[in-house]
Amino acid sequence: MATIRDVARVSGYSIATVSRVLNGYDNVSPETRKKVLKVVKELNYKRSDSMKGSSYKVVGVLVPDLFGYYYGIIAESIKEVLIKSHIEMFLSTFRNSIEKEKEALEEFFGRKVDGIIVCTTYDDEDSLEKFVTTGIPVVALDRDQSELKIDIITIENYNSTLKIAQYLYNMGHKRVVHVEGPLRIYSARERKKAFQDFAQKNKDFEVIFIPGGFDAQSGYTSIKQYLKKNGKDFTAAFFVNDWVALGGLKALREAGYSCPEDVSVVGFDDAPFAKYLHPSLTTICQPMYEMGLNAGKLIVEKLEGKKESRVKRRIILPTEIVVRDSVKKI
Amino acid sequence: MATIRDVARVSGYSIATVSRVLNGYDNVSPETRKKVLKVVKELNYKRSDSMKGSSYKVVGVLVPDLFGYYYGIIAESIKEVLIKSHIEMFLSTFRNSIEKEKEALEEFFGRKVDGIIVCTTYDDEDSLEKFVTTGIPVVALDRDQSELKIDIITIENYNSTLKIAQYLYNMGHKRVVHVEGPLRIYSARERKKAFQDFAQKNKDFEVIFIPGGFDAQSGYTSIKQYLKKNGKDFTAAFFVNDWVALGGLKALREAGYSCPEDVSVVGFDDAPFAKYLHPSLTTICQPMYEMGLNAGKLIVEKLEGKKESRVKRRIILPTEIVVRDSVKKI
Repeated sequence: MATIRDVARVSGYSIATVSRVLNGYDNVSPETRKKVLKVVKELNYKRSDSMKGSSYKVVGVLVPDLFGYYYGIIAESIKEVLIKSHIEMFLSTFRNSIEKEKEALEEFFGRKVDGIIVCTTYDDEDSLEKFVTTGIPVVALDRDQSELKIDIITIENYNSTLKIAQYLYNMGHKRVVHVEGPLRIYSARERKKAFQDFAQKNKDFEVIFIPGGFDAQSGYTSIKQYLKKNGKDFTAAFFVNDWVALGGLKALREAGYSCPEDVSVVGFDDAPFAKYLHPSLTTICQPMYEMGLNAGKLIVEKLEGKKESRVKRRIILPTEIVVRDSVKKI
Repeated sequence: MATIRDVARVSGYSIATVSRVLNGYDNVSPETRKKVLKVVKELNYKRSDSMKGSSYKVVGVLVPDLFGYYYGIIAESIKEVLIKSHIEMFLSTFRNSIEKEKEALEEFFGRKVDGIIVCTTYDDEDSLEKFVTTGIPVVALDRDQSELKIDIITIENYNSTLKIAQYLYNMGHKRVVHVEGPLRIYSARERKKAFQDFAQKNKDFEVIFIPGGFDAQSGYTSIKQYLKKNGKDFTAAFFVNDWVALGGLKALREAGYSCPEDVSVVGFDDAPFAKYLHPSLTTICQPMYEMGLNAGKLIVEKLEGKKESRVKRRIILPTEIVVRDSVKKI
């Protein structure tokens, strides 16, 4: 395995200069940086051991937060894979703050983790580039694309949502509310776009878009405000996830509307609570556990230097509609 | 600050021997161990820096899992405190396995973390002792007591449950089901005991105890099986937490019983979904966020060597009943 000495020797720079490049310091000319990184790539140089006091490799996992079920399930499943290969997980959260996201990635880099898995991060290409160019493997979950050589795991956001639109359409719903997620997030944008496109194609299908968030309170507020202003001028509602649907259902009830008698409701995720609700929630099953397992496997393959890990991979996991009691044919 | 050299000098043993003791190796006589640890305590010796590549201190946080909301919320709030003191969190889970619990604690010890916070762990006094005797501060959450000099944060499990029993009694319920949690867990035992004691004191109050777990499925199965065997011979049900209540509510509905018309239901936690359910769930609000904040503060105080951190502390956080729509007066 190439050492920092090898990189210095082959590139013709001093170890100190190579070190400055690898640590991402500014006091290096762009030209020098480029030459050094070229050699780093050629020699497949990897920075040596991660954390003191253990010979285990460490993978940094960055998720937005652990308040709901979504990232907790993903983290647990990643860990399940890593532990089998005696790799440890260093889990961090950034609470949807771009600044904290950057800090967390800096921290991973500073700690010399052996690989990273990032979930639902954004505006981070600059931060991630450092890992890629220094040979630290990166797997991104719940992300559209990247200019970088990283692996991406996502689900069929667009197609799943088309399926929902088609399902509601087939059940006779022609005027449907969509409570959106935060549109800076790729999955929320994809879901909105699918509904837009479906409505464009089917002229007798109309969608009312309402801004929302990813939590129950935002679903509650969105529906409550909409009803106050416009009354119930729709027969079905599609929520960006099951938390938001949970809040929306409460707002509908408080305004005197029953589900599915007055309004049909569809969520997204198949949250652990979805099947226990009253009525039980029709939703898209998002394979959170499989997402984590796949992310874990990809990073392990990269760390073990498997052949197939040298290409930029993109895995799109399938989803399916789970039909329960919250949608009525009209 | 005392070094390992100081411990060797004062105790009269070699550095190698002191090191064997501090690393918990077996090839040291009990007498030697005792003498060395005495000096370790006297000199307030602490093992030096935690992880390579960072000058930050690190606190290991061990929770059962991240599947629900409970430990995710606690972990997030712990992190919130640590980050302000530039201390990092190394989060690990043990999935309710005693073996994995031990492994995770070994791992923390091996990584030389500066402090640990353990949540709902069990059978771990041996593992924790190593930290305590080597001067690494320990805070335990959701735990009854300890022989060791560790800080404990818990809630009023017993008194909260007495309040629920009294509330149901006042609402006219005299025959009540209690779906228990796993009784190896202290909080589940306390909640059961409170109901038992209340029934003992109030002869016209009868409790039917049904074994359960901590998840929705266990609540569903427990109630389904009970109803099949005995029919609905109770007017109210108290579930060990809100997940279990969620499952129980579904089983009741499937058997044709409405809440609160036929059966009143009370949960525990005030889960993020509780207020959105239909009917909204009467429950005990467990201050998860405050539990994490307190745990974070205690460990920070210890790491900063504050005077008050030298005693064994026990903080019991108050709870309150959140009255919603799932209990009816009869």
